[in-house]
Amino acid sequence: MLNDYQQVRQQTLALTEWLSAEDMILQSMPDASPTKWHLAHTTWFFETFLLQPHLPGYRVFHPSYTYLFNSYYDTVGDRHPRPTRGLLSRPPLSEVLAYREYVDSAMVKLFEQAGDKHNDDVTIGLHHEMQHQELILTDIKHALSFNDYAFPEPAPAEQLPASQPDREFTAFKGGLTTIGTNAESGFAYDCEQPEHKVYVPDFSLRNSLITNQEWLEFMADGGYERPKLWLSDGWARCQREHWQAPLYWRQTEDHWQALTLHGYQQVDPLQPVCHISYYEADAFARWAGYRLPTEMEWEVAARNQTIDGNFSGSGRWHPQAPAEKGLTQLYGDVWEWTQSPFLPYHGFQPPGGALAEYNGKFMANQWVLRGGSCATAKAQLRPTYRNFFYAHQRWQFSGLRLAR
Amino acid sequence: MLNDYQQVRQQTLALTEWLSAEDMILQSMPDASPTKWHLAHTTWFFETFLLQPHLPGYRVFHPSYTYLFNSYYDTVGDRHPRPTRGLLSRPPLSEVLAYREYVDSAMVKLFEQAGDKHNDDVTIGLHHEMQHQELILTDIKHALSFNDYAFPEPAPAEQLPASQPDREFTAFKGGLTTIGTNAESGFAYDCEQPEHKVYVPDFSLRNSLITNQEWLEFMADGGYERPKLWLSDGWARCQREHWQAPLYWRQTEDHWQALTLHGYQQVDPLQPVCHISYYEADAFARWAGYRLPTEMEWEVAARNQTIDGNFSGSGRWHPQAPAEKGLTQLYGDVWEWTQSPFLPYHGFQPPGGALAEYNGKFMANQWVLRGGSCATAKAQLRPTYRNFFYAHQRWQFSGLRLAR
Amino acid sequence: MLNDYQQVRQQTLALTEWLSAEDMILQSMPDASPTKWHLAHTTWFFETFLLQPHLPGYRVFHPSYTYLFNSYYDTVGDRHPRPTRGLLSRPPLSEVLAYREYVDSAMVKLFEQAGDKHNDDVTIGLHHEMQHQELILTDIKHALSFNDYAFPEPAPAEQLPASQPDREFTAFKGGLTTIGTNAESGFAYDCEQPEHKVYVPDFSLRNSLITNQEWLEFMADGGYERPKLWLSDGWARCQREHWQAPLYWRQTEDHWQALTLHGYQQVDPLQPVCHISYYEADAFARWAGYRLPTEMEWEVAARNQTIDGNFSGSGRWHPQAPAEKGLTQLYGDVWEWTQSPFLPYHGFQPPGGALAEYNGKFMANQWVLRGGSCATAKAQLRPTYRNFFYAHQRWQFSGLRLAR
Amino acid sequence: MLNDYQQVRQQTLALTEWLSAEDMILQSMPDASPTKWHLAHTTWFFETFLLQPHLPGYRVFHPSYTYLFNSYYDTVGDRHPRPTRGLLSRPPLSEVLAYREYVDSAMVKLFEQAGDKHNDDVTIGLHHEMQHQELILTDIKHALSFNDYAFPEPAPAEQLPASQPDREFTAFKGGLTTIGTNAESGFAYDCEQPEHKVYVPDFSLRNSLITNQEWLEFMADGGYERPKLWLSDGWARCQREHWQAPLYWRQTEDHWQALTLHGYQQVDPLQPVCHISYYEADAFARWAGYRLPTEMEWEVAARNQTIDGNFSGSGRWHPQAPAEKGLTQLYGDVWEWTQSPFLPYHGFQPPGGALAEYNGKFMANQWVLRGGSCATAKAQLRPTYRNFFYAHQRWQFSGLRLAR
Repeated sequence: MLNDYQQVRQQTLALTEWLSAEDMILQSMPDASPTKWHLAHTTWFFETFLLQPHLPGYRVFHPSYTYLFNSYYDTVGDRHPRPTRGLLSRPPLSEVLAYREYVDSAMVKLFEQAGDKHNDDVTIGLHHEMQHQELILTDIKHALSFNDYAFPEPAPAEQLPASQPDREFTAFKGGLTTIGTNAESGFAYDCEQPEHKVYVPDFSLRNSLITNQEWLEFMADGGYERPKLWLSDGWARCQREHWQAPLYWRQTEDHWQALTLHGYQQVDPLQPVCHISYYEADAFARWAGYRLPTEMEWEVAARNQTIDGNFSGSGRWHPQAPAEKGLTQLYGDVWEWTQSPFLPYHGFQPPGGALAEYNGKFMANQWVLRGGSCATAKAQLRPTYRNFFYAHQRWQFSGLRLAR
Repeated sequence: MLNDYQQVRQQTLALTEWLSAEDMILQSMPDASPTKWHLAHTTWFFETFLLQPHLPGYRVFHPSYTYLFNSYYDTVGDRHPRPTRGLLSRPPLSEVLAYREYVDSAMVKLFEQAGDKHNDDVTIGLHHEMQHQELILTDIKHALSFNDYAFPEPAPAEQLPASQPDREFTAFKGGLTTIGTNAESGFAYDCEQPEHKVYVPDFSLRNSLITNQEWLEFMADGGYERPKLWLSDGWARCQREHWQAPLYWRQTEDHWQALTLHGYQQVDPLQPVCHISYYEADAFARWAGYRLPTEMEWEVAARNQTIDGNFSGSGRWHPQAPAEKGLTQLYGDVWEWTQSPFLPYHGFQPPGGALAEYNGKFMANQWVLRGGSCATAKAQLRPTYRNFFYAHQRWQFSGLRLAR
Repeated sequence: MLNDYQQVRQQTLALTEWLSAEDMILQSMPDASPTKWHLAHTTWFFETFLLQPHLPGYRVFHPSYTYLFNSYYDTVGDRHPRPTRGLLSRPPLSEVLAYREYVDSAMVKLFEQAGDKHNDDVTIGLHHEMQHQELILTDIKHALSFNDYAFPEPAPAEQLPASQPDREFTAFKGGLTTIGTNAESGFAYDCEQPEHKVYVPDFSLRNSLITNQEWLEFMADGGYERPKLWLSDGWARCQREHWQAPLYWRQTEDHWQALTLHGYQQVDPLQPVCHISYYEADAFARWAGYRLPTEMEWEVAARNQTIDGNFSGSGRWHPQAPAEKGLTQLYGDVWEWTQSPFLPYHGFQPPGGALAEYNGKFMANQWVLRGGSCATAKAQLRPTYRNFFYAHQRWQFSGLRLAR
Repeated sequence: MLNDYQQVRQQTLALTEWLSAEDMILQSMPDASPTKWHLAHTTWFFETFLLQPHLPGYRVFHPSYTYLFNSYYDTVGDRHPRPTRGLLSRPPLSEVLAYREYVDSAMVKLFEQAGDKHNDDVTIGLHHEMQHQELILTDIKHALSFNDYAFPEPAPAEQLPASQPDREFTAFKGGLTTIGTNAESGFAYDCEQPEHKVYVPDFSLRNSLITNQEWLEFMADGGYERPKLWLSDGWARCQREHWQAPLYWRQTEDHWQALTLHGYQQVDPLQPVCHISYYEADAFARWAGYRLPTEMEWEVAARNQTIDGNFSGSGRWHPQAPAEKGLTQLYGDVWEWTQSPFLPYHGFQPPGGALAEYNGKFMANQWVLRGGSCATAKAQLRPTYRNFFYAHQRWQFSGLRLAR
């Protein structure tokens, strides 16, 4: 476990190596946080839920840090207002890095003294940190997207592979089945629990993710201009924010470019489309004559697949075209919007203590995404993993797969 | 059918008898519409979907009326912007009443000529009109609530009946069951269709609706002050809008009063609480240690009950305390918030034509309410009927019943 | 004085004869008020400042009316919120008209009992009522402009007179002079007082008002597209509100139409332009190579002119082309924006009592307009009269004259 | 002149020595800019208006810098949106400092080649840079005020000097006088020109600035609670933003503290009050029974005084109590709000070229402040210098002096 701890903590820093202290303070919207804040907040988590209660004689690194780096745990106390996290030039990055080292050293001591005793809470802390690893990537991408100077000239268009995505569907037999998981089966968040019975009718899933090429067809066919393709709320948002393409796309004279974490690149028609909202995914499905899968359908289809694919560890940080035919890319590349709102499972019980606030309070107006993305740590994923965002949000690596 | 037609059309006017032409132009928020607009829009529905296509030689009452009184049917054409419906002083009420008579006469002709041929569309028109009957009452209540002068002095507190609400629960056996309905079983909206299988675990429902007395207990126990009782979005809304009690309540020196459509009255502890949002209902359930029912649970419990209760026809237009013990008031009095988002049923197909826009486009971010209220026409209700509103909306007669 | 009283009160009603009770409740923005509210508020003024203090035994018409119809006199007490005056369907118009009669009868009694004793306050009340007469016209024009149904088809373009507006300038000798007036010289508002010395350099004023034809030239020359012509605040407003022409103009296939209080009419090139903001007037002056006059210059030029012209009494309610050459139309037709902010004159003292709040508290961020418009009562005007509005406001009959 | 150039440029850097690269990227509101942006923008000014047109063979440091660091010169081209200047983590501070050195070296060459030929434009550039020096201090104070962690614990209350501020008034004789200046009299901005005649009546000015002690009296007497003391716009703003004290004040259990650029300090009753809006200054004057001076009165009083006092060069960066009696502190300590809107002087002509946009376009809705502050460079001040801000703005070192 100490090994896991050190590996995850180290990986967080590795993701930020290309960023300067000035980059790491940027906050471009209240939904996003500065890199430095993520670095400190994940550390505060271990200090607050492991070291303070369990390491005798532990002294907090700085008494103000709870106020600065608590995220939303009302039980723990007041906190610095979220929308102004980008004004925290102090403490400087160097002090936050020292904070990480201070806590990491104390954690070593805790492991020495307590052995496996707190493994459950450490595990939560590590999964929590992996979630923030993904946000580090998506938040800095959003922030840098406002600065035309931040990225060098676009790379030349890559040579595209010849193979086409597999537009076939794979059929699944429905029936009464169990969804979710129980605590004894290994780590899972509160919202994935408990295992419970549901009825899932027969269904089919598209083998490949929807590609940029298909998205360009949707756009060419008036996808962003025909209200009848859209949910009412989605159409209102589309018009208010003048959506005409996925987030981070820009049009040059003769083609579309997309911002990646390595700069602008010509849109590759074979790659999965990403940075789309639920509303866009839903409109696309309606246009295509299909629908989005439910999260139950996705789980039924994915639970027997190997968890493998394009994750954050690769350093690519952008979805890739699949190498083969058949049902692919259920894990990695892009989060897949489902038509399932984020709701408590039957029998859901919030955990006790401060961590009781973990997921339950977000169970309204958000939609479940499944499968992880190119910015997700592989170790974070499970077939039962439920991610969730609001229907209008686009800054995650979110794409779609069709069902019928 | 002509009989039904005339009865429903007449009832719409009956609901407005107490209102002046000046009252009938009020619009207090974009969500609500003026009474006069409702009177014209329901008439426009018959003109557009029945008379224009089917009555040979029919001439529209006025060519501008489609622009003025179309609600949201994009297929039908442009329309006057919803937020400024309250600026339509012209046409005057008298002309709108003449419009109703003109269309009603033409409808008589259509019935004579076509017999039962268009009964399906007439039925939709009548159910559509009954929906607007309810909105007439809730919208005018909202509008008049801004005018302290509109209602005479509060009535003296009524003599309260001695019996207490029945806080017991009735148990229901779960299992695989069918929910929803098919077209051949009688009129139902698109969103109630098709009949489909779901798995519903065992559950229990509270016999009575939650009362004002219980709500006062919730308030006294810090219900509006403790973030941990609330969904995150709900708490944000509660703070932003300074909620401290249900909508339309006001505090005098020694008690609470609630606005009714007959003026302010002292809050009756035995009556069902109403004008609460989903967020409040959810917070109450968490506080009480229970949960809201799903819409499937509600339907299972209600489908064997007689549809009877306190509806708009009574003229009371306010929820009443139940007369007896046992599982009561599933129909009428208040709409019951469920924990089910408004989603397409498995196999949902939007109808063809202009009416295709009826319900499908609202299937995001809204929650299902079941059972009808004191402002609902009895004829409008079925066990499968799904009403839906956003989680923050409070101006409907919305209350709650607990489940476990 | 009783004669004056009755004449002014009667004229208010005369201005509303063409409006229905439904029209008279419209409020299209917080800056504007419903006609019915104006009718009641002007009456409340006499009740509050004349009848209550001075007529023994006077009983107020209704105790709630002070709350409903006070405008901004903090000294007098709480009041109904301004932005929701349009929700006051009750009291109905008929009751407000009865209120006017009730107060008018009591005023007759007061005149009988007190003779000339309260003439000063009555005079204020009448000038106050004449100000509201103008607002009745400008506010209802704004409200009805949202309803395409409100006005019949545009009238055919009138035969235009052949004479061209006089673009010459008249020169005035400057020097030390006195501006403003003192109480003993006849009625004037607090803000016109006291008479005080200022230094006015030599200047020239354009003989005619700027015409629609000149405005069309400004538009054709990119007047609404070139930021360098505009004040910084003005350009921001122009872009935010998408100004491309004066308020109430609309473009048809081959010409521009302007809304008048008698319906849409083809824009007459020889008429003075109106419904423009200060920002537009200022941009036009910069484009034309001139400047707006100061209010002192205007007063110097106008104080020897006869007060005559196109006022509200004519019933035309729209600016007209001048009949002759030379310096014309200083009074009537359109209010003329000056480059003078609305500030206290040297030696300004707010009056005592509740009327102390009359004008002083508005002396920031507003600009002086001079000369009255086609919606102003002639009796309201004096050479020293200062009207004032914010730089972005356009719903008054506001135009411009150049200076150099 | 090279000497002056180097001294001013060096002083800009000196003001930022206490700030980190992370501090220098902060932007807390659209009105304010990051320190790094100020450092680059002032440099861009010399590159654009001196080096590019006048130094043969000059190559711009980076072609994107004009887009990034132009402020509002529409003539010069497009620019990065002002509200997101705080997202410019790149270029890093180190590159901006290299930019300063690059331009400074080129300027040395220009001086060598062209001698005094461009002194006028260099002078504008230096005065422009001194204006930004002041903004560097006021903007970073605003940004750091959001971070409770930024400043160490408040210093202990200083020992206060015993002498009381001089509340006497000094009388000045009025009459026809000249205000402003002409180009030939030495450097002055366009808005200070031309010299022109005005009539100024007799007046008196308070000897000392209004102190914190007097402000505490105003607060204790309901200054922030009585609408009758306020301009209408001011009262609306006061309520909307919950003003209860000057900006940057906070209340502890037994006293008030004010944020200074050296941390929080106990409010010193003898120091001039600062960080107040025009609205507050105006309300105070009304409460005290006086008025604010006009800018002409201030200029008449100040033009014979030595320009001496507490400026930015001292490094104190906070207003101080005066050392002596009599008319003091006209220069330095705090900008003094006048009751004069910022308007063109009679005969004002905007300069030609890109610098034409310098001041003229801001001549609406802003108010003149006179005399400089503790954050102003002494070399920047003249008796005719006109600073200007909106009436609600408080983040400058703005205070007041009374007149009568």
